[in-house]
Amino acid sequence: MTEFRRLGILGGMGPLATLDFQQKILAATAAQRDQDHVPVVVWNVPQIADRQQALAGNGPSPLPQLLEAVKGLNQAGASHIAIPCNTAHYWYNELAAASAAPLLHIADITAQTILEASFRPQAVGLIATQGTLDAGWYQARFSQAGIRVVIPTSDELARWFVPGCYAVKRGDLRGGGQLLNLLADKLIARGAQKLVLACTEVPPALGSVGSRHLSDSIDPGAALANVCVRMWHQSHAAF
Amino acid sequence: MTEFRRLGILGGMGPLATLDFQQKILAATAAQRDQDHVPVVVWNVPQIADRQQALAGNGPSPLPQLLEAVKGLNQAGASHIAIPCNTAHYWYNELAAASAAPLLHIADITAQTILEASFRPQAVGLIATQGTLDAGWYQARFSQAGIRVVIPTSDELARWFVPGCYAVKRGDLRGGGQLLNLLADKLIARGAQKLVLACTEVPPALGSVGSRHLSDSIDPGAALANVCVRMWHQSHAAF
Repeated sequence: MTEFRRLGILGGMGPLATLDFQQKILAATAAQRDQDHVPVVVWNVPQIADRQQALAGNGPSPLPQLLEAVKGLNQAGASHIAIPCNTAHYWYNELAAASAAPLLHIADITAQTILEASFRPQAVGLIATQGTLDAGWYQARFSQAGIRVVIPTSDELARWFVPGCYAVKRGDLRGGGQLLNLLADKLIARGAQKLVLACTEVPPALGSVGSRHLSDSIDPGAALANVCVRMWHQSHAAF
Repeated sequence: MTEFRRLGILGGMGPLATLDFQQKILAATAAQRDQDHVPVVVWNVPQIADRQQALAGNGPSPLPQLLEAVKGLNQAGASHIAIPCNTAHYWYNELAAASAAPLLHIADITAQTILEASFRPQAVGLIATQGTLDAGWYQARFSQAGIRVVIPTSDELARWFVPGCYAVKRGDLRGGGQLLNLLADKLIARGAQKLVLACTEVPPALGSVGSRHLSDSIDPGAALANVCVRMWHQSHAAF
């Protein structure tokens, strides 16, 4: 296993979600002084082609900018790379092939977190972009474990998810949160016992409106942050 | 003037202050979509020698790690570098000499912000580390403009400032905020009309305890963030 020396965060998708992920790393760290914190280099360069548009066939691929970020993070001494954007994992294989530092896969880590928890839900709701839903990472991992997955309909995505996400991206957290909360209501009504908030814009948006669904939610960004902090402490303890 | 293409943030001092600075950049940005935000690469590597200890002659210099960060940010394409840590500006000249990207000086920008404001105080209080106070950047700039500077005594620094800062660094924002608020009380009592919170740990700590002094405070980190966003928009408008 590669020694965990420095975490590279491939962010920018979006800028707020990238900050939220850093906040989660800080919150998960038991530190007595500056030097105990996880060393991080963050690539928060949002001038990158829109992922949802690219996957819908309506715009250019973000792959060239993602590859530039992976190269930059490797040059900056990253021993591991986390991508706090679910949809960007569509290009995971190409990025992993171009990186000396291993890339942590957000869906692997989230599924593992749910399967290891004391309460195992029979059905989970999945709030994600069309691209993440189409990729099927979460569905495959949950189905394999016998967990039913409740996904949004195309109509629900268009009415609540897409405008909710883009509201967050322009800084309207509360507006976005209200829309996303309506989608969460629907998935719970269809039998989901837990919600996987598999788009990094969703947790801060639901938080800003004090959504009652947060307590029944799994935040893949938080799961990823927790694993990064644990890996750092495990490597660091060896010093 | 160098075109503003990408901001490098030399952070890590401390990790929370580095996040707070990124939050200030986001808050100062009028953005409609991801791609409108300031492109940022953040070096948040806190494994760096303690600045206060080094300046007190009690520990090694952080200069080697600061130079590594400057090199890394230049390699990552930074056109400008901001350092959201007042004390680290002690090594400003050495860092600027080693950097192709210009380094923005936090005290220059803060003094300029105060001198351009509609209300010009007759006396400002300065909350800062012994290193920043000794360096005299803020005092020189304010004295030149005829503004009296109220600084903490050694006793006040030892009782409230130092333990307050280190509380923030271990994650105890409220504990730190209570101590720092007592110091703010003293400077106001000695005639300061505005407080310059010239240590990046101070604003989030005072915020966490809802300090009444925040409304009379100037936050150098916010001033620096505002200037970065303005420079980005000025360059970006030309595209």
